Amino acid sequence: MGKFLTTREENYSQWYNELVIKADLAENSAVRGCMVIKPYGYAIWEKMQAALDTMFKETGHVNAYFPLFIPKSFFSKEASHVEGFAKECAVVTHYRLKNKADGSGIEVDPEAKLEEELIVRPTSETIIWSTYKNWIQSYRDLPILINQWANVVRWEMRTRLFLRTAEFLWQEGHTAHATQEEAIEETIRMINVYAEFAEKFMAVPVIKGVKTENERFAGAIDTYTIEAMMQDGKALQSGTSHFLGQNFAKAFDVKFNSKESKLDYVWATSWGVSTRLMGALVMSHSDDHGLVLPPKLAPNQVVIVPIYKGDDQYEIMREAGNKIKNQLKAAGISVLFDDRDTHKPGWKFAEYELKGVPVRLAFGARDMENDTIEIARRDTLEKQTISQENIVETVKQLLEDIQENIYQKALKLREQKTYAVDTWEEFTDIIENKGGFVYAHWDGTTETENKIKEATKATIRCIPVNNPLENGTCIFSGKPSNQRVLFAKAY
Amino acid sequence: MGKFLTTREENYSQWYNELVIKADLAENSAVRGCMVIKPYGYAIWEKMQAALDTMFKETGHVNAYFPLFIPKSFFSKEASHVEGFAKECAVVTHYRLKNKADGSGIEVDPEAKLEEELIVRPTSETIIWSTYKNWIQSYRDLPILINQWANVVRWEMRTRLFLRTAEFLWQEGHTAHATQEEAIEETIRMINVYAEFAEKFMAVPVIKGVKTENERFAGAIDTYTIEAMMQDGKALQSGTSHFLGQNFAKAFDVKFNSKESKLDYVWATSWGVSTRLMGALVMSHSDDHGLVLPPKLAPNQVVIVPIYKGDDQYEIMREAGNKIKNQLKAAGISVLFDDRDTHKPGWKFAEYELKGVPVRLAFGARDMENDTIEIARRDTLEKQTISQENIVETVKQLLEDIQENIYQKALKLREQKTYAVDTWEEFTDIIENKGGFVYAHWDGTTETENKIKEATKATIRCIPVNNPLENGTCIFSGKPSNQRVLFAKAY
Repeated sequence: MGKFLTTREENYSQWYNELVIKADLAENSAVRGCMVIKPYGYAIWEKMQAALDTMFKETGHVNAYFPLFIPKSFFSKEASHVEGFAKECAVVTHYRLKNKADGSGIEVDPEAKLEEELIVRPTSETIIWSTYKNWIQSYRDLPILINQWANVVRWEMRTRLFLRTAEFLWQEGHTAHATQEEAIEETIRMINVYAEFAEKFMAVPVIKGVKTENERFAGAIDTYTIEAMMQDGKALQSGTSHFLGQNFAKAFDVKFNSKESKLDYVWATSWGVSTRLMGALVMSHSDDHGLVLPPKLAPNQVVIVPIYKGDDQYEIMREAGNKIKNQLKAAGISVLFDDRDTHKPGWKFAEYELKGVPVRLAFGARDMENDTIEIARRDTLEKQTISQENIVETVKQLLEDIQENIYQKALKLREQKTYAVDTWEEFTDIIENKGGFVYAHWDGTTETENKIKEATKATIRCIPVNNPLENGTCIFSGKPSNQRVLFAKAY
Repeated sequence: MGKFLTTREENYSQWYNELVIKADLAENSAVRGCMVIKPYGYAIWEKMQAALDTMFKETGHVNAYFPLFIPKSFFSKEASHVEGFAKECAVVTHYRLKNKADGSGIEVDPEAKLEEELIVRPTSETIIWSTYKNWIQSYRDLPILINQWANVVRWEMRTRLFLRTAEFLWQEGHTAHATQEEAIEETIRMINVYAEFAEKFMAVPVIKGVKTENERFAGAIDTYTIEAMMQDGKALQSGTSHFLGQNFAKAFDVKFNSKESKLDYVWATSWGVSTRLMGALVMSHSDDHGLVLPPKLAPNQVVIVPIYKGDDQYEIMREAGNKIKNQLKAAGISVLFDDRDTHKPGWKFAEYELKGVPVRLAFGARDMENDTIEIARRDTLEKQTISQENIVETVKQLLEDIQENIYQKALKLREQKTYAVDTWEEFTDIIENKGGFVYAHWDGTTETENKIKEATKATIRCIPVNNPLENGTCIFSGKPSNQRVLFAKAY
């Protein structure tokens, strides 16, 4: 199957596009920029959702649902928010269609024009804070710790499956607090939740940090981010958590009576991850044979393939395969037993390699005699023949090993492709020729940041948390700097 | 708390509206016709989703996600579908806003007009069948058994929380089959899944049947429905499953090669339930004190309220309450221990009555001495003092009893309010004065059906499955009829 996929070496970008489609994760739809998430892709997303939802609830959050549409005027209320979000978006202007007079189809009914246009939500701060206004009078009403699973629309001109689509699925947390300290604590709590999810479940190491003013969420005081390195050395922003200060409370006039009976504006955070994580997952681990999925997110952790000749063997194999399947299932492992007689074992092997199933078990007539089974791991493609006796324990251990191994592999790659440089020459050489993360001194101005971006397409991904202070000079301007920041080209 | 709620007797409709808001299930938003589903309401919806999703997966379905937007032209492809759905809907005509020249806000950018308008999906048959066209070549690609959890928009003029809103949440199954028989079998399988869910989880008895031509889904050959009776005797259509024949396959040219190497159009079904079920749940069981929730869908099955004086007692009670809470949790029961010292026990009792928590446990100083506890059930409001010794078993049994009791109560009410009539006089008397379900003979014509509706507002809810044949004369036209059908006013 590998030969059907462009290799990463040949063309990393094309490899990704082909893999997403060939592994049945998603495809483009008839609607420009909108994707269809296919069952196999959606099954991975469901696993992500389940793990995240549990983590959100464990940290005290509850789910709710707010409207898809936002009145146009809401966007004008928070000045920097409108600049960032209200521009490229889907606008609902009418609420009815009618038959054309000539019977040739339907058309928009000009008489059904909305008084105020509605924006399909690109993010929900405005509609949610207009709602919170009615929920909050006193400090007793705080904190509000709400998350929403939803679809959002941003009218992107150039789209790519999962990485950048006009419509995407995400979760957005929106919390309200009585104090600045509490809101900042929440902002940091949630970026930590995201980092833990990325590393423990996706097996993707991330760097936590703060965005520069330039790269901040529109309307935020501070944006925390987790940045992951893809195999080509580019960064992928994988989740953000925003401290919004009192900006949205002021825009929607949300005040509360404090314990000290003082009237004050409410403090806010918002935080989100999206189906973009699917792109990060694919690009972090997969190889030229197809997907490599971490066991904790794989829809099927194990596939069993029987190798047989004739109907007699087939029946015996089916029985044996089902027995193993049931043993594994009873241990909480998700298993697919592919006993279809319409496809050859070789075809199946290639198929499940493409689909990234972490462990493959295969057995033939000789294995039946010897009570053995072939076990193959997707991450290293190694296989060995083992006794069937301790199959459950062996598989369990192997799934843990694979989860850990692909994390370590991604971490090692990141370490190999991470540099600290002190000159503009080194900087441009790495960004343009080698690819990777570059720690370099920066003078702290947006002007310099923009000029570096114009010259190299590299952006400041973040100022890492607990960044060591160190005196140096800006690689671009030569001005003094007291810390290195993280530069990379990004998706 | 009861006194704050309009009683059902006084005004059933107002009772419902008040209850949904006071019990914190949902509220109207700033966007006309769109609701905010609040955390408590959403927690119930999540329980519904989890149960349904499990049932869908057990019957072989997988989830996927299709675009929010549908190109306008897609609706014209299936003639009856466009009549039913494309008229009252949200139309996206532009993809950008811009700052007004005078700086007074933002406006739609006239230069960003879409070539073809996009409809916010009111239902997804068209976009899904345009996708299935690329997925299906051979009988080997069939069946496709996909479900989608999504939001949809129908521009309703008169809206009510949960019952009829412009945007609502639902699931829509869309399946593709090689034969008519298989598709019909699937249609019936899913209406049975819905009926089982309504009766087992919601504790709402339903009547399964087929819709008349007039009430069919736009584009269906046959629509199966489950109809539930609310406490005021009106019907609420709670779920539908449609046999779509080859209508959508023909509209989108979806053909397959059969086992016999013949080219044929694919057979289709679709089926859905929505947040409307929340309305059915509230109206089936709740009373003048507030919600009555079935234990299987209650976010908290048990609430524990301590009754104490002074800090010393408070500490002892907290310890005791947490111990009971942990015992119940270990048995898989969801428990809230309300140990807040900011609210009095009486306030808490009323609050959890309003919120419909099935079982309330309360204990004071004397209970501590005697090792007893007061246990109250929400459905009957009965309470008794029991020994703490078998608390887990007692609560478990009581939850089962409540689940069964509210089902039986709803069933009994339906039986009391169900009539078989043979004359127009009786018919109008029941529909107009008593309210309820009426089985009556009908001549089988749409003309008569419409005239009955005009005269009484009653509609044919369904022709029940396995309906006994019986000769009679139509209550309206006097023409011959061979079966009674189910009439009622409906939500």
